[in-house]
Amino acid sequence: MKIIDLLNWRYATKKMTGAKVPAEKISNILEAIRLAPTSIGLQPFTVFVVENELVRKQLTPAANNQPQIAECSHLLVFAAWQDITEAHMDNYMDLVGKTRGLSPEALVTMRSRLSVYLKPNPEHNFQWAARQAYIALGTAMVAAAAEGVDATPMEGFKPDEVDAVLGLKEKGLHSVLLLPLGFRDMEKDQLVKQAKVRRSAEELFVWVK
Amino acid sequence: MKIIDLLNWRYATKKMTGAKVPAEKISNILEAIRLAPTSIGLQPFTVFVVENELVRKQLTPAANNQPQIAECSHLLVFAAWQDITEAHMDNYMDLVGKTRGLSPEALVTMRSRLSVYLKPNPEHNFQWAARQAYIALGTAMVAAAAEGVDATPMEGFKPDEVDAVLGLKEKGLHSVLLLPLGFRDMEKDQLVKQAKVRRSAEELFVWVK
Repeated sequence: MKIIDLLNWRYATKKMTGAKVPAEKISNILEAIRLAPTSIGLQPFTVFVVENELVRKQLTPAANNQPQIAECSHLLVFAAWQDITEAHMDNYMDLVGKTRGLSPEALVTMRSRLSVYLKPNPEHNFQWAARQAYIALGTAMVAAAAEGVDATPMEGFKPDEVDAVLGLKEKGLHSVLLLPLGFRDMEKDQLVKQAKVRRSAEELFVWVK
Repeated sequence: MKIIDLLNWRYATKKMTGAKVPAEKISNILEAIRLAPTSIGLQPFTVFVVENELVRKQLTPAANNQPQIAECSHLLVFAAWQDITEAHMDNYMDLVGKTRGLSPEALVTMRSRLSVYLKPNPEHNFQWAARQAYIALGTAMVAAAAEGVDATPMEGFKPDEVDAVLGLKEKGLHSVLLLPLGFRDMEKDQLVKQAKVRRSAEELFVWVK
């Protein structure tokens, strides 16, 4: 299983069959998201795993009626933190301390080093948090393909409407990405047979030798 | 080779040995970046592959003197488009048309559908472009690990200084991410033995069943 083969196999699936993705495959995809790197390791987002069919139907208009929201097996909603607060940093330091068994002194040093990332600007902090979710998305795409699961990354939706259905605002979250997981409908999805469009390596990369 | 094992193997390497990464491995990592999904498929960034040692040394102060810039084998610099213009969209439509053999009529329809993504706001467009580069970074992390290559994603650098060294501003680009590729120094990198810090699945994921 080469990563390049996985990336060539996947595509932004437009029609899914509605078949359920086995729990173990979902679990492996979520674990890849959990292990994805983020800046300073903060993981400033929550991922909603929407299996409930009724809720996915409620979310469909917010996603401009794209059929995959209802036809998928599990809909992932990446919701970034609206702001990054002192409390978030304190929780993170607790986690680092417990995981690595660091001394209180080492934690204080680390905490002061991290404070440069805390800006008194919620919009700036939200944009930063959102970018981290995109790293996890990039990791999730490969993990899904490795499980033979189709995934359709979506930015084209109404975040405020998604937030309202899932009650995100009250939780200090704001939706930034949708990722339906399911299986491609080989007969009905016209994109199945389309060639992948990518800029050439000569155009995308500039070598400084 | 399970994706989860690759993600557990990798870590943000702090000390690299300086050994050269074989060309085939670099080529596979770059191909994964090229195949990574982006919104509407636009790939609104350029990736600089800095192999030149002198240039990497010049870039070191801009990266707060982090040693991996000089100790790595190849430094990837992800540079997002400063704006997304009509010309970018036209080029993309040409590429779609050539790759998929679409009729001029089909291209006109697609082009008008895509124009909703074009905002008369360069800062908005740049932020959008930057996020797409983060997807590619998330894909690159897995691809590097699959090649047994270490990679250290970096946001902590001075973008204007990196831009100045590589002449990015004049090319309509702005640096958003650095990714040194190389090999971990097992003896000198204290992080090698540290446990990975990640929020628990119970905290990171919210199930809607």
